[in-house]
Amino acid sequence: MGSSFVHDVIIIGAGPAGLTAALYCARYKLATQMFEKMSVGGQIVLSPMIDNFPGFPGGVVTHELMDRMHQQGRELGIEVIYEEVNSIEPVSGSTPVIYAVNSSENRYETRSIIIATGAQSKRIGVLGEEKFIGRGVSYCGTCDGPLYKGKDIVVVGGGDRAIEEALFLSSYAKTVRLVHRRDLFRASEIIVEKARANPKIEFMMSTVIEEICGVDKVDLVKFKNLKSGEISQCHCNGVFVFVGIRPDTNIVKDLLKLDDTGFIITDRELRGSREGIFACGDCRSKSLYQVITACGDGAVAAASAHKYLLNN
Amino acid sequence: MGSSFVHDVIIIGAGPAGLTAALYCARYKLATQMFEKMSVGGQIVLSPMIDNFPGFPGGVVTHELMDRMHQQGRELGIEVIYEEVNSIEPVSGSTPVIYAVNSSENRYETRSIIIATGAQSKRIGVLGEEKFIGRGVSYCGTCDGPLYKGKDIVVVGGGDRAIEEALFLSSYAKTVRLVHRRDLFRASEIIVEKARANPKIEFMMSTVIEEICGVDKVDLVKFKNLKSGEISQCHCNGVFVFVGIRPDTNIVKDLLKLDDTGFIITDRELRGSREGIFACGDCRSKSLYQVITACGDGAVAAASAHKYLLNN
Repeated sequence: MGSSFVHDVIIIGAGPAGLTAALYCARYKLATQMFEKMSVGGQIVLSPMIDNFPGFPGGVVTHELMDRMHQQGRELGIEVIYEEVNSIEPVSGSTPVIYAVNSSENRYETRSIIIATGAQSKRIGVLGEEKFIGRGVSYCGTCDGPLYKGKDIVVVGGGDRAIEEALFLSSYAKTVRLVHRRDLFRASEIIVEKARANPKIEFMMSTVIEEICGVDKVDLVKFKNLKSGEISQCHCNGVFVFVGIRPDTNIVKDLLKLDDTGFIITDRELRGSREGIFACGDCRSKSLYQVITACGDGAVAAASAHKYLLNN
Repeated sequence: MGSSFVHDVIIIGAGPAGLTAALYCARYKLATQMFEKMSVGGQIVLSPMIDNFPGFPGGVVTHELMDRMHQQGRELGIEVIYEEVNSIEPVSGSTPVIYAVNSSENRYETRSIIIATGAQSKRIGVLGEEKFIGRGVSYCGTCDGPLYKGKDIVVVGGGDRAIEEALFLSSYAKTVRLVHRRDLFRASEIIVEKARANPKIEFMMSTVIEEICGVDKVDLVKFKNLKSGEISQCHCNGVFVFVGIRPDTNIVKDLLKLDDTGFIITDRELRGSREGIFACGDCRSKSLYQVITACGDGAVAAASAHKYLLNN
């Protein structure tokens, strides 16, 4: 069952970026349709609390903040359609371009698209990891670090981000064990040296986590040394994993320019490499992946889509 | 009276961008000092309500939102120093660079600086304009447009932004008078044509506002035709002025690269053209000037400053 109605804009993804884009599109009075394949809120709902969203002193429960953003769009008539978008294609011969957006159930047409599909932190894939997300397993030091004041934590990874986060987390935690599967870091030497000079940080090279254990929350981690085969364990309140982020950009991989790691390349108006397609939030290549930056992006993408529609 | 203490970061300006930068800097545990020459909140406090800040369905009183952001920084120990910064200079011979920040009263030293000095919408400078700011006079259609549903409004300006905002405002207002001092627009022809085709928009070329009148809020505007000298007037609930924005970047004009209109040029990590100096919010050159984008900027600038300090 298709529809011959052509939307002004279709927003794909209802996390902070998509929800803010929807709020702005609705205020611009664009005929807006929003799609979400899972549930409103995006990957941030894996963190129970958000302490660094401006405007909420003392922090805010993540679900509450996302409900508030969702509510704000609903007040302006934005409804989320819970269908997975499988493909996007330009309708041949249309000028200015019209895109067909195909979901599992329908085909929609639109004059512009805002991609807000987000990203997922890569998992290390060990026992206990999924179970304890939000209860001791975290993928964001900036977000959750202050919860671990005086605690024992483990940081996993070998790139710049892992070392930067280990250094940052050491300003809160009592001890930081930095676990890396290789015997050398990809991270730049200067910050590796800073980490080596930091008395709170212990290096565990050529080591992987075998299992993350606990009852209600994490309290123990088991390690394996890949060279000796030796198994060890330590008390631990938090495991911070920094082994990469995987953007959810499969549906646009043949349509838009992506960077080497799959993030969408945008200009400063958040235009993708095809006219009428914009990207915002964690799915695009940028310097900081936070709820507040996703929201800022959403506003920019909506304003740029609005400007594009006025001019075409 | 000087101080020999070297701060990690000095933030100049306590609007949404600066307050968010402070929140992030405090969470990064940077030795942070924040300066404000007027009062916390920035130019947005001229708008009484903010309806498009994500997380506040139904809108939020601007002062309340700014107080909440201020409070959030205070919880982490950030105090605002109410001194005007007059100049910034690198301390000669320092490697990595240290900057001296000179206020009206003191000299401070810091390893990095975040410029968040904001901008001011240019005034047309007519009687009644300042008096009715926030009570009928507005410099942001995106922010205040929905308050004028079914009302009569006047839009002033001749560039792209003025026409775009007139078109946007016509989706709410009953009538839009577009007032421009010249007989041709700087705006692109395509959107001028759209505005001409819009039955709600009336063009008043070669015309300026003489006076904005009202009791508690705007209810009348007087015009002067510059060619005929004729004076006219009309009922009006809102005057939207789009004659440019002036960034508050005087203190860095000899230090950082600015664009033609005085905005600070930054890269995607919001670094300015000198090491250790970052810029965020309305004072930098970018595509959309909103509270939410200022906040996103603040987070990016703080994260980039943190990264810079780790690596230097």
